[in-house]
Amino acid sequence: MQIQPDMDVLISEVGPRDGLQSVARTMPTADKLRWIDALHAAGVREIEVASFVPARLLPQMADAAEVVRHALTLPGLTVMALVPNRRGAEAALAAGVHKLTVPVSASAAHSLANVRKTREEMVEEVRAIAELRRALNPAVKLEAGISTAFGCTLQGEVAEDDVIRLAAQCIEAGADESGLSDTVGYAHPAQVRRLFRRLFAEIGDRAGAAHMHNTRGLGLANCLAAHDVGVRTFDASLGGLGGCPYAPGASGNVVTEDLVFMFEAMGVKTGIDLERLIAARAPLQAGLPGEPLYGMTPEAGLSRGFSQGVLHG
Amino acid sequence: MQIQPDMDVLISEVGPRDGLQSVARTMPTADKLRWIDALHAAGVREIEVASFVPARLLPQMADAAEVVRHALTLPGLTVMALVPNRRGAEAALAAGVHKLTVPVSASAAHSLANVRKTREEMVEEVRAIAELRRALNPAVKLEAGISTAFGCTLQGEVAEDDVIRLAAQCIEAGADESGLSDTVGYAHPAQVRRLFRRLFAEIGDRAGAAHMHNTRGLGLANCLAAHDVGVRTFDASLGGLGGCPYAPGASGNVVTEDLVFMFEAMGVKTGIDLERLIAARAPLQAGLPGEPLYGMTPEAGLSRGFSQGVLHG
Repeated sequence: MQIQPDMDVLISEVGPRDGLQSVARTMPTADKLRWIDALHAAGVREIEVASFVPARLLPQMADAAEVVRHALTLPGLTVMALVPNRRGAEAALAAGVHKLTVPVSASAAHSLANVRKTREEMVEEVRAIAELRRALNPAVKLEAGISTAFGCTLQGEVAEDDVIRLAAQCIEAGADESGLSDTVGYAHPAQVRRLFRRLFAEIGDRAGAAHMHNTRGLGLANCLAAHDVGVRTFDASLGGLGGCPYAPGASGNVVTEDLVFMFEAMGVKTGIDLERLIAARAPLQAGLPGEPLYGMTPEAGLSRGFSQGVLHG
Repeated sequence: MQIQPDMDVLISEVGPRDGLQSVARTMPTADKLRWIDALHAAGVREIEVASFVPARLLPQMADAAEVVRHALTLPGLTVMALVPNRRGAEAALAAGVHKLTVPVSASAAHSLANVRKTREEMVEEVRAIAELRRALNPAVKLEAGISTAFGCTLQGEVAEDDVIRLAAQCIEAGADESGLSDTVGYAHPAQVRRLFRRLFAEIGDRAGAAHMHNTRGLGLANCLAAHDVGVRTFDASLGGLGGCPYAPGASGNVVTEDLVFMFEAMGVKTGIDLERLIAARAPLQAGLPGEPLYGMTPEAGLSRGFSQGVLHG
């Protein structure tokens, strides 16, 4: 748990990684750094700043090490990177990240399509990364994000037993925590409650983040459902960056601004200043002119009398 | 309660009234009727089809009686109309509606601005309408919708005691049920749970619909919160019609399509066929060309393997 005394929940911003990964145009490094600075200035305390994958596969992430180096200069920030395998973890550890996240798909079909490995092979990859981390820098945290945990566009339904077993196997293999990701936007609140309850029952406080998408508009409802059953870390993306290529017009990740608004209105402290967070859209937009940004709160403005942690407290 | 054996919740479509009220252009009557027909064909069983207000104030509603007459021909449909006062109720009862809804604002400032009456005077209006209903057609249902129940753009915070007292006073004055409306999109899930719990404690099964807006993206999360504490009737608007003039780009009412998707995915039966519901956007769009429609589910499409009441059941 990265939660600090002045926070009830941890909002983990994934825009610079998950968001940018879905954007065709490469964002200039200088704009990425300004964007990350603005997120940090708003009080964001964990950012997934990059993924360490071959630059020829994802040119957007060619500057991963440089972005990490800059992010490390920001006080109090947990600098996180996605790594799909041991090689990526080596590069990320060399760059100095505080936390690694490894995507492990609960869908057999998605696992093969996404990383060309079976689920069992990915658990072994987690084990190898955990050993590498122990050898190189034991202070680094390691998360396994169980993707397609709520359904899969390739195979349809994903068995809940598979999800829970895989999460437990990743912990056994050396991950510090396992979170659940609604990679394709299929989750609904009843399922979110059921699956996270099972996750807590299985791995206790090793249960990690809820990573929800907003593909069918249920992102915030699913985060609320996860919070109801005890989840305290939530992935989100500024401006909802991260559209689904197969779902034109549908936004991808849960919008950070709306999520922070929801929690703060409820009196659940995020540690994030909402006005400054909305201001962080400017450098994002500057680096990706014309890219559509989502978010109802930035468009509507804060409600009259909204004062973080006070109104409706 | 209008809930039928094959439904766990009642979705009350308010687009033809609340939605159109915010649209500048007047929708041709023939298009309204096709839209209402399509909603009914999708399985919608309660529609707020019009408001009975002076045509000079709201030209959009000049055809209210004609719309009601047509809607009355649709089997199994509860035909509902908004009436702000006794005069409107007379016209609505003459047209033959099944259900009247009277907006009673919990915000003193909004009540004066909206209907030029104090809250106390509105309770007396409810009493007069209830007596009129008893005299003319006792079978007609009467709902008092407590508007600005979760906050007000004019006065800011609205005291929860005021909301609950007003709801009880409306029941005492003869209304069959009192619902709570987040007229301006200020509600958050913790508040929704707290206030509806208090409403149930105060007036029991006379507690009516949750009328949520999506101004800051919290519409579905608020409906989930209301459902959690026992609310079973939900107002919503096809395509989220009903924008907020003061919040450009922000959709207004909860989007019916997304709400139905959420409930059906959860196994909570709405009685509504989602594909047919999405098809009902066509006559709406035909009647209001160029008018922006919202809704993530229509844009993303149904999830693979989604089968109402089956998947994730």
